[in-house]
Amino acid sequence: MAVYTKVSAEEIGQFLTRFDVGTLVSAKGIAEGVENSNYLLETTRGKYILTLYEKRVDPADLPFFIALLDHLAAHGCLVPPMIADREGEKIQQLCGRSACLIVFLPGVSVSHPTEAQARSTGHALGDMHRALADFEPERRNILDHDGWRALAGQCGPDELDNIAPGLAGTVARELDYLDEYWPHDLPRSAIHADLFPDNVLMLGDQVTGLIDFYFSCTDIRAYDLAVTHAAWCFSEDGSDFHDPISRALIDGYATAFTISDAERRALPLLARGAALRFLLTRAYDWINTPADALVTRKEPQAFLHRLQYYQHHPEIFET
Amino acid sequence: MAVYTKVSAEEIGQFLTRFDVGTLVSAKGIAEGVENSNYLLETTRGKYILTLYEKRVDPADLPFFIALLDHLAAHGCLVPPMIADREGEKIQQLCGRSACLIVFLPGVSVSHPTEAQARSTGHALGDMHRALADFEPERRNILDHDGWRALAGQCGPDELDNIAPGLAGTVARELDYLDEYWPHDLPRSAIHADLFPDNVLMLGDQVTGLIDFYFSCTDIRAYDLAVTHAAWCFSEDGSDFHDPISRALIDGYATAFTISDAERRALPLLARGAALRFLLTRAYDWINTPADALVTRKEPQAFLHRLQYYQHHPEIFET
Repeated sequence: MAVYTKVSAEEIGQFLTRFDVGTLVSAKGIAEGVENSNYLLETTRGKYILTLYEKRVDPADLPFFIALLDHLAAHGCLVPPMIADREGEKIQQLCGRSACLIVFLPGVSVSHPTEAQARSTGHALGDMHRALADFEPERRNILDHDGWRALAGQCGPDELDNIAPGLAGTVARELDYLDEYWPHDLPRSAIHADLFPDNVLMLGDQVTGLIDFYFSCTDIRAYDLAVTHAAWCFSEDGSDFHDPISRALIDGYATAFTISDAERRALPLLARGAALRFLLTRAYDWINTPADALVTRKEPQAFLHRLQYYQHHPEIFET
Repeated sequence: MAVYTKVSAEEIGQFLTRFDVGTLVSAKGIAEGVENSNYLLETTRGKYILTLYEKRVDPADLPFFIALLDHLAAHGCLVPPMIADREGEKIQQLCGRSACLIVFLPGVSVSHPTEAQARSTGHALGDMHRALADFEPERRNILDHDGWRALAGQCGPDELDNIAPGLAGTVARELDYLDEYWPHDLPRSAIHADLFPDNVLMLGDQVTGLIDFYFSCTDIRAYDLAVTHAAWCFSEDGSDFHDPISRALIDGYATAFTISDAERRALPLLARGAALRFLLTRAYDWINTPADALVTRKEPQAFLHRLQYYQHHPEIFET
C-alpha cells in the first residue's frame, strides 16, 4: 500500500510516448492495491493508472491477467483492462520493473457496505462468473486448499499460538476437517479470489468497477462467492456477522448466475476454507513483517473470528 | 510521503457535503508533500486535494498559511488555496485531525530541471516575492539561522561524525562563520522556504503551481532564493553543480523582482546557510528515524556536498 519504485515525471512522460494517450498533465503516486507501485496519471486525453509490478506479482502471470481482463471487458464487465502501445504490446518495462498502463475507472471503495451495495457486488460477481464460463486460460491458485497445510507449517505452531492462544490447534483441526470434506466435483472457473470491498469501485449503490485481479486464478467457482462473503459480511474485526448483507450478496449473485444445489450445500465449507486462507496468509505476514515496516500488517484474528462463526453457523447459507 | 490517516470513502463523501463542490466520484490516497495525509478527490464538479494535518504541521499555523495562499491567489500567483465551506470556514476537523479541502492544480514535478524550467521557477519565485511585499502576517521561521546551533546540538557531535567523519567539526566551524557574517539588514518578507522541485508543478517549461507552503515563514527574502538555488542547481547527491541552471534560476528571478546589490553580495553566504539548514534537518531526521521506517530518510551528505561547494565557489553568484 505504498509507492515502492519512484518514477520521475520525465520518465513517465517518456513512457507515455509509446501509447496514443496524449501528453502528461499530472502524476501522483497512489496508495492502492497489493504490493505494486501505482501512479494516477492525467493526460491531455484522459486518466490512467500506471502500475509497476513489485515482488508480489510474477511477471510470468501477467499474460493470464491481461487475457482475463480483456475477456471480461469484451463481455461488458466493468474491469480496467491494460492499454496496448502502438505495437500492440501491453506488458512494458519501466525502471527495471514490468509495468502496465491501465484504464482508470471512477468510483470509490466503501468501508461499510449497505445491503444495496452488497447486492450490486454479488450481481457483478455473478456477471463476472457468467462471462468467464468460456474463458480457457488457466492459472493455478497458489493459495488453494492444497497449499494451506504447507502455509500453516511455514507459520509454525509456536508463532500461531503467539498470535492467539490455541490457534495452532484450531488450524490443525480445521485443516483435517477441510481435507476430509473439501469438494472435488464442483464447477471450476477463473475466479477473482480476493474481492474485498477495497477491490470494488462504487458510485452510490452501483458497482463501477472490479479491480486488482492479481490473485485471480482457476479454482472452484463457488469458492469465489465464499471469499467475497467472508470479505463483505462481517465487521472488519470479524466480531459481528451482518446477516442482511450476507443475504443481499448471495441474492444479488443468484440474480446474475445460477448457484446449483451442490454449490449451495458446499458454501458453509467453502466459507470455512476462505476464512482459513486469509487467516493463514495474514498470520504468515504478521509473523514475517516487522511491526514498523512500510506495509501495514492486518490482524489475523479478524479471520479467526470469521472461521469460528462459519464453524458454528452453517445455517446462514440456507435460503 | 504516505497516507497516515485512513479516511473511508463514506467519511470523505460526508465531509464534502459541507462544501459546494459536488459529490464524490473518486478518492485516492496519494504520496505527496510533508508528513500529512493527502487524498486526490474527483467530484462531479472538479478535482481537489484533501489534506489531513499530521504531527509536523501545527494547527495554530494554518491561519497564516491560509492567509498567505489567499493573498498570493488574489495577486495572480499560481498557488492552491484552501476552499471555504458554506459557512466560510477553511479549517475543518476530520478523523481527529485538522483538515483542509484544497484546489487541485495540474502539472508535474520534474526531477531533472532544464534551464527553461529553472528560469520559469525563478520567475515564479520573484512573482511570489513581489506579491508578498504588502503581506503583513508574520510567522517565525523555527528553522532560521538563530536555531541552527541548537539543532546541531540536538544531533550530537558523535552522531554527526557517524554520518560523515569530521562532520561535527565542519558544522561547528560553519556555525561560527555564519554567526560572524550573517546579515541583519536585508529585506525580510514572507517566504516559501522549501521550494524544491517537488514543490513546483510544471507543464513543459511553464510553472503551473507552487505548492506545499507548510514551511513558509517570515525571514530574509533573498534567503528564499538561496534555498531554491541549493534545491535546484545540483545533482540530487550534491556532487555536481549545474551552472547553467543556476544562471537561469537567478536570471528568471531577476526578470520578475529586483535583486539589490546588497542581496546579490549576500547570496554566497545565504546559500551556505541554506545548505547548512538542510544538512542539519536531514542529519537530525537521519539520526532519529529508524532505517526501515515509513518515511524515507534523505541523505544528509547531499547537502554537505552543497555546503562545501558554496564554501569554495562564492563566484557562482557573480553576474
